Amino acid sequence: MLKIPPHQVAGHQAGNGKLGPLVDESGRFYKPLQGDERGSNELKFYTSFSSDSRIPEHISKFFPTFYGTQLIEASDGSGLKPHLVLEDLSIGRVNPSIVDIKMGSRTWAPEASEEYIQKCLKKDRETSSLPLGFRLSGIQIYGNKESGYWKPERTSMQNLPAEEVKLILKKFVSSNTSTGMDLQPDCAFTATVYGGSTGILSQLLEMKAWFEDQTMYHFYSCSILIMFEKGLALEGQNPGGQIKLIDFAHVIEGRGVIDHNFLGGLCSLIKFISEILTAPNEQKSLGSSVNGVN
Amino acid sequence: MLKIPPHQVAGHQAGNGKLGPLVDESGRFYKPLQGDERGSNELKFYTSFSSDSRIPEHISKFFPTFYGTQLIEASDGSGLKPHLVLEDLSIGRVNPSIVDIKMGSRTWAPEASEEYIQKCLKKDRETSSLPLGFRLSGIQIYGNKESGYWKPERTSMQNLPAEEVKLILKKFVSSNTSTGMDLQPDCAFTATVYGGSTGILSQLLEMKAWFEDQTMYHFYSCSILIMFEKGLALEGQNPGGQIKLIDFAHVIEGRGVIDHNFLGGLCSLIKFISEILTAPNEQKSLGSSVNGVN
Repeated sequence: MLKIPPHQVAGHQAGNGKLGPLVDESGRFYKPLQGDERGSNELKFYTSFSSDSRIPEHISKFFPTFYGTQLIEASDGSGLKPHLVLEDLSIGRVNPSIVDIKMGSRTWAPEASEEYIQKCLKKDRETSSLPLGFRLSGIQIYGNKESGYWKPERTSMQNLPAEEVKLILKKFVSSNTSTGMDLQPDCAFTATVYGGSTGILSQLLEMKAWFEDQTMYHFYSCSILIMFEKGLALEGQNPGGQIKLIDFAHVIEGRGVIDHNFLGGLCSLIKFISEILTAPNEQKSLGSSVNGVN
Repeated sequence: MLKIPPHQVAGHQAGNGKLGPLVDESGRFYKPLQGDERGSNELKFYTSFSSDSRIPEHISKFFPTFYGTQLIEASDGSGLKPHLVLEDLSIGRVNPSIVDIKMGSRTWAPEASEEYIQKCLKKDRETSSLPLGFRLSGIQIYGNKESGYWKPERTSMQNLPAEEVKLILKKFVSSNTSTGMDLQPDCAFTATVYGGSTGILSQLLEMKAWFEDQTMYHFYSCSILIMFEKGLALEGQNPGGQIKLIDFAHVIEGRGVIDHNFLGGLCSLIKFISEILTAPNEQKSLGSSVNGVN
C-alpha cells in the first residue's frame, strides 16, 4: 500500500492530485522519474554511484540506498510511471525533526542551459545561497504531542540572513515546544544532537574530508538532510542524529577537480554548527565584531 | 629612485606612459590608489587589517606589510598621486619564479553594481574560475641565465582546463630550462618547493585553517602569489617558497559567515598541489577515471 511520505519537508510533494514521491510499508521511497533530462541524470547518477567501488562505506552510508526503477501508479492519477526506488530515509522514525539544506552558493553547473543558469542565478542571489553558501530549503521541528510540528513556509526559510539561520539551527536542537520565530531557543539538545563522536558535526566533518579529496562528482543543487528524534532526546536516549545527501538531478562529472562549490557551502554550514556547539546561549553580537571594512 | 617592479606578473603595469605600481630600493612597493571606490576600499582594508588585533601573526605574515599612503609622482607622468605604500614582496629575490592565482569561482561580491557583476560573471564563466575555483592570472618561470624567464601571455593562462593547469604547476617546480607548453616537466623541485614542513602546501594548509574559521573578511577577486628562487633550488639550498595574498580592492565584511567562495577555491588549489606532490610524474589519465556520469 503506497502512501504520501509523512515527513517530506522540501521538493515536489504528492497530494491534491499532484505528482510526487510515495512510500510503502517496507521502507522504500518511490520518486517519480522526472520526464526531462533531470530524471535521466538522477537515474544515471544512482546507477553509477551505487556500483562505484571507489566510494568507501563510511561515505556511501550518507546516500539513500538505490533499488533500481519500477513502474508504479503515479500519485497524480496519470497511470503507470517509472519511479526511482530508494531507501525511505524516515523509516523507523516516529516524530523526526528534519531540516533540508540546499548546498552550494551556486546551484547551476557550468554546462547547463542559459535559461536554467539565469533562473538559478536569480534564485541564488535572492536567497541565502550566495551569502551563506547554502539555503534552508525546508524544515519541520517536533514540539511535543500537543503542539506537533513547527513547519514554517518553505519560502520564508530560503532567504534568511546569517543570524536568523543560526537561530533556526538552534531552535532545531531545543526542547521548547513552541518553536515559532519569536521564541529564544534553550538549545537543550545541542551537545547530544550536534556534538559527540557520532553527532551531526562529526558526520559533517567526515563528509568534508571526502569532498576535499574526491574529484569524481560535482553535486549541484543537492541537499543535506539533518534528522533526529526529539522524543528520544527528551527521554535522555541517543536521538539518532543523522545526515543524508539527496537530490541528484544536477550531478555532473568532476573531471579531476574537487567540488569546491559544495565544499565551500559545507564548510560554512560546519562553521554555523561549530559556533552553536561552542556558545549555544550566545546572543546576537555580530555588529560589535565588525571592524570598519565594508 | 623609483622604478618599475621587475617581477610583476599580473595587474596594471607601469611603463609606456601607463599608470602602475613602482618600487624603491628600500623594499617598498607603491601602488597607485585607484580613483574610484576600489582605491578607497583597498585603503580601508589595509588600514583595518593592519591594526586588527584578531589576526594572528602566522596569518598576517601572508599579507604585505602596510606603511600607509604617500603622494608620489605617478608612473604615467600625471603628477603627484596618492599611492598605497606596501612591502615589496620580491625584495631580496634574484630570479624569482612567481605565479599569480586569482582565487574563488566568483570574483564579485553580492552587493557590487549590476554592471560590475555581469562583467565579472562573464569572465568567471569564460575562464577557469568557474570550473576550478581559481584562475592563473600571470606567471613567470625562471629557466637559467641563458634562457631567462618563461612569461606566457596572461590571457593564455586564464582559461586552461584542469590538466593544463596541473601541467603549469608542475613546470613551475621543474628544472627544465626551456619551459614552453610543449615540454614534459621533470618536477625536480616538487618536494623542496611544494613539500616539507615549511613548503607551499604547508603554508596553504595554514591559510586554509584560518579561512575555515574567520568570518571577518570576504576576499573577492584577490590573488595568492606563490614564489620561490630556482637558483637556490639548483644549488640544493632552501628555495624560499612563499605564499602571499594580494589585491584587496574587493574585500567586504564577512558578517559572521566564512568566505566559502575563497575557501572552496583554496581547497581546489590545495588538491592540485597535493596531487603533484603525491604523483609528480603521473601522466594525463583523466579519461579513464570517469565512470559514466556526465
